Amino acid sequence: MSTLTNIDVTLRDGGYRNGFEFDVDYTRRHAELSVRSGFDWVEISYLKGSFDPSLSPGLTGRGDLWYISAIADTIGPEHVCIILHPKNVVPADLVDAYDAGARLARICVSSRDFDTTLEYIREARRIGFRVTANFTRVSRYDPRELAHLAHATAQAGAEVVYLADSNGSLTPRQSARLVGLVDQVSGAEVGFHAHNNLGLAMSNAVAATDAGATWIDSSVQGMGKGAGNLVAEQWLTHCEREQLLSGVSLPVLLDLSVSLRANVKESAPLVPETDLLLGHFDLSIEERHEISGDHRAQVEAARRIGKKVVA
Amino acid sequence: MSTLTNIDVTLRDGGYRNGFEFDVDYTRRHAELSVRSGFDWVEISYLKGSFDPSLSPGLTGRGDLWYISAIADTIGPEHVCIILHPKNVVPADLVDAYDAGARLARICVSSRDFDTTLEYIREARRIGFRVTANFTRVSRYDPRELAHLAHATAQAGAEVVYLADSNGSLTPRQSARLVGLVDQVSGAEVGFHAHNNLGLAMSNAVAATDAGATWIDSSVQGMGKGAGNLVAEQWLTHCEREQLLSGVSLPVLLDLSVSLRANVKESAPLVPETDLLLGHFDLSIEERHEISGDHRAQVEAARRIGKKVVA
Repeated sequence: MSTLTNIDVTLRDGGYRNGFEFDVDYTRRHAELSVRSGFDWVEISYLKGSFDPSLSPGLTGRGDLWYISAIADTIGPEHVCIILHPKNVVPADLVDAYDAGARLARICVSSRDFDTTLEYIREARRIGFRVTANFTRVSRYDPRELAHLAHATAQAGAEVVYLADSNGSLTPRQSARLVGLVDQVSGAEVGFHAHNNLGLAMSNAVAATDAGATWIDSSVQGMGKGAGNLVAEQWLTHCEREQLLSGVSLPVLLDLSVSLRANVKESAPLVPETDLLLGHFDLSIEERHEISGDHRAQVEAARRIGKKVVA
Repeated sequence: MSTLTNIDVTLRDGGYRNGFEFDVDYTRRHAELSVRSGFDWVEISYLKGSFDPSLSPGLTGRGDLWYISAIADTIGPEHVCIILHPKNVVPADLVDAYDAGARLARICVSSRDFDTTLEYIREARRIGFRVTANFTRVSRYDPRELAHLAHATAQAGAEVVYLADSNGSLTPRQSARLVGLVDQVSGAEVGFHAHNNLGLAMSNAVAATDAGATWIDSSVQGMGKGAGNLVAEQWLTHCEREQLLSGVSLPVLLDLSVSLRANVKESAPLVPETDLLLGHFDLSIEERHEISGDHRAQVEAARRIGKKVVA
């Protein structure tokens, strides 16, 4: 029991739904309920912006130090997680974030500027953070390159190599194979971050944990980019029922679910039709503008420019 | 390819969300898009009411003959499906429904009045219907009784034995085991009807088809009782991508998705917290009133009265 570590990514990935404009009072209540419901970590924000910081101007896109402090005061630093793109920060920002109360730093991997990725993994470890290396759009990686880079991030000090199915395109079998690959070659624990474009977030999370993943991301009501993430209520209930986790409090989990729904209207679950195509043809949300017109034209364009999933 | 038969249950199971009050013009457009998107059958309504007819006063709860005719005129009788509880009808109602244009009759099994169930299966076959026997709340059956009754319905003429996870409580393993059991003992094809209380509708449908189920129910946007059904958009996309089905039109499927969302506001996907408990503890929606109070009291009550899932 309790070999799984769970991260609540609602406030960060859900930010794509509401411009990252969560009310600070809500974020404190959310984080408190999240920890009491059984989450190990609350990913409270980006540090200094998403991949394109101009698109994440809100509270949980910026990750101001006063905000990190406010949440750390509420739930304790041992539950406070941030995520960052190295290109958006300087090393002093990590020191400041640590001093403000963050203790888990998720470093987004850039395969183009991989040296900087490794540098920030080392830097975060030096400062005292627990560190994960987060590979986005894993469906697009060549498996050999993924294996090589994953090993390097672990060598640099990443305790967990996180695989994000950013395009929501992986099948359960592909998820299991990628997790198995990284589990065997990296020497680190493996994490999995699902998107629900094809309704496979739960299937993929189950397949990933069966294959050895020990860290799982989910968000309340599934609130996340596009079609959303693995639904936290369903995932933790599943883990509790299957005795994969001790320490889940169903009542508090339901309180958290109701609280988000009542306070953040953008949390409503969605089955958005364009995201089905993105998942089906392994396109990223940034490529959405390339599939325009009526649905017939969209399907044709998606099929034409769609990538092959690797695993 | 194309060994799977798909039924669109939106207009019927989705009726629990909007009092079965669909606009007839909408139902015609829905049925037409449904068939063009790749569904074999459109379940257009109950015949003379749901289990408690006083709770299904609307168009798709009643299944008036003029309505059956209207849909049969639109999509052809070969795609028109109705579902019925024998206790709500007399044999002449089946004749009338057939004459109006319905061709697939789904007979809800009553284990308490099983002779009547068998009588209506035979009667429907005699009239000329294709017939399925629909076992509801399969999580509550003793497997030996289920095997016995399933065999009897097949002997009486049911072409398909349908297993409905009405409580949304089955795991993929349990779904597979129940399908495998009925597949081996009934001599009929096996169908599966999922509910998404625990986010497992897709996982369970995949497990069911892997185990031999060849008929699958789904609904657009997942619109169905409580937490809803298997999401049709995701299921058909999955089948198309995995080459389990030929004849899926993704553009029309997306048109159908958008059309339902635009015309029926109650179709919005939900992650309702009480239904998580119903699924977790294998309670039916009719037992919801037994779990009241705050979430802590609800969880305690659900745990106390919860049934053990069999498979």
